[in-house]
Amino acid sequence: MYALYIANKNYSSWSLRPWVLLKALGIAFEERFVPFLEGETYEAFRKFSPTGLVPCLVDGDVTVWDSLAITEYVAEDHPNVWPADRTARAWARSATAEMHSGFFALRNICGMNVGLRVTLNEVSPALARDQARIEELWSEGLKRFGGPFLTGERFTAVDAFFCPVAFRIQTYGLDVGPEAKAYAERLLNLPAMQQWYAEGIAETLRDQPHDAEVPLVGTVTADYRAVAK
Amino acid sequence: MYALYIANKNYSSWSLRPWVLLKALGIAFEERFVPFLEGETYEAFRKFSPTGLVPCLVDGDVTVWDSLAITEYVAEDHPNVWPADRTARAWARSATAEMHSGFFALRNICGMNVGLRVTLNEVSPALARDQARIEELWSEGLKRFGGPFLTGERFTAVDAFFCPVAFRIQTYGLDVGPEAKAYAERLLNLPAMQQWYAEGIAETLRDQPHDAEVPLVGTVTADYRAVAK
Repeated sequence: MYALYIANKNYSSWSLRPWVLLKALGIAFEERFVPFLEGETYEAFRKFSPTGLVPCLVDGDVTVWDSLAITEYVAEDHPNVWPADRTARAWARSATAEMHSGFFALRNICGMNVGLRVTLNEVSPALARDQARIEELWSEGLKRFGGPFLTGERFTAVDAFFCPVAFRIQTYGLDVGPEAKAYAERLLNLPAMQQWYAEGIAETLRDQPHDAEVPLVGTVTADYRAVAK
Repeated sequence: MYALYIANKNYSSWSLRPWVLLKALGIAFEERFVPFLEGETYEAFRKFSPTGLVPCLVDGDVTVWDSLAITEYVAEDHPNVWPADRTARAWARSATAEMHSGFFALRNICGMNVGLRVTLNEVSPALARDQARIEELWSEGLKRFGGPFLTGERFTAVDAFFCPVAFRIQTYGLDVGPEAKAYAERLLNLPAMQQWYAEGIAETLRDQPHDAEVPLVGTVTADYRAVAK
């Protein structure tokens, strides 16, 4: 069985991608939770992941240490990871890779923190560009392939890669237009996403580097995270 | 036939990846050269690429707009894009994806500029970490799969993704140790890389944003680029 190393569900957007993919598709895996360790995360994670980063998938003697590589690795045995249609698959892979190597403003300014609600101080031009691109890209996929998911009727890897964006839209109230907001809601309502969210806000472990980013960009208006007793 | 949009060979490290992959594997494609246009690159590139970035591959009515998505798209029809062995393929995909979403210090400080030779002012801790990781990663691949390429006897996509690093090692004299230097030399000596280099230094078009980065990080000791007459 696959073993998937992931970090805190409240913060780890990269962990979420393969986790929600496997969960939503009903692909069995053992979850190995390793929390962020202030100042020692790299050393701790290097014990199982060559980059010191999560997610990392272990399958027997094979280690796959990146979210997109995990996706393609799993897709070799589970063709439903990608759309069946060749054109839809090319589109899905392009959009997934665009997320994998881009959207820096969105990722840096709006760090995933699923239990918080935050009002941003400002929407910088770079963030506005990322929001506009999300709106454009999602709209194109939904129109072209008919929805309700980005490449049609089934949830595939491209949807999984944008699940962290759905949490960010919720946390920061990002203005991506009604169509993209409705799609983000659809993602948030998936049983796998509901499970991730519930387990994320149940966490009482905090990671100072992640939490410290929030007051730099906005004001917390609600905090649904459990508090350690 | 595939059509591959690429930008200036002197500068465009992302263009190089799929170009050298297709070239080295003997996969036919039409090259569509579109130079960087100071201040107007995004608008110009948006005419064919939804992100305004290169590379972008067009195959009939299919557009694939990211280097890694292009790789997987082409791999569907050309299995030699990846190693044949499953474990080697998982390793290759992990290392390729790591390059695709990481090595920021190396990419930002040592911008590809194939015709220049530069002495860096300093090696920052972040750059030193990236260099050490390159050394570690390449060494692991070469040892584990027997060389001369990262996953064995054949040049595959993972080698293509590190071809820009070979040019950076040459331009900036990066200290990655003898084993990694020898591998970089092997890449630089490939006919496809020799062709890219020759065509790169023959370009007389300059892109100010790229060239302006160089004096900020070091001193140019040689410039082999052709000069417009």
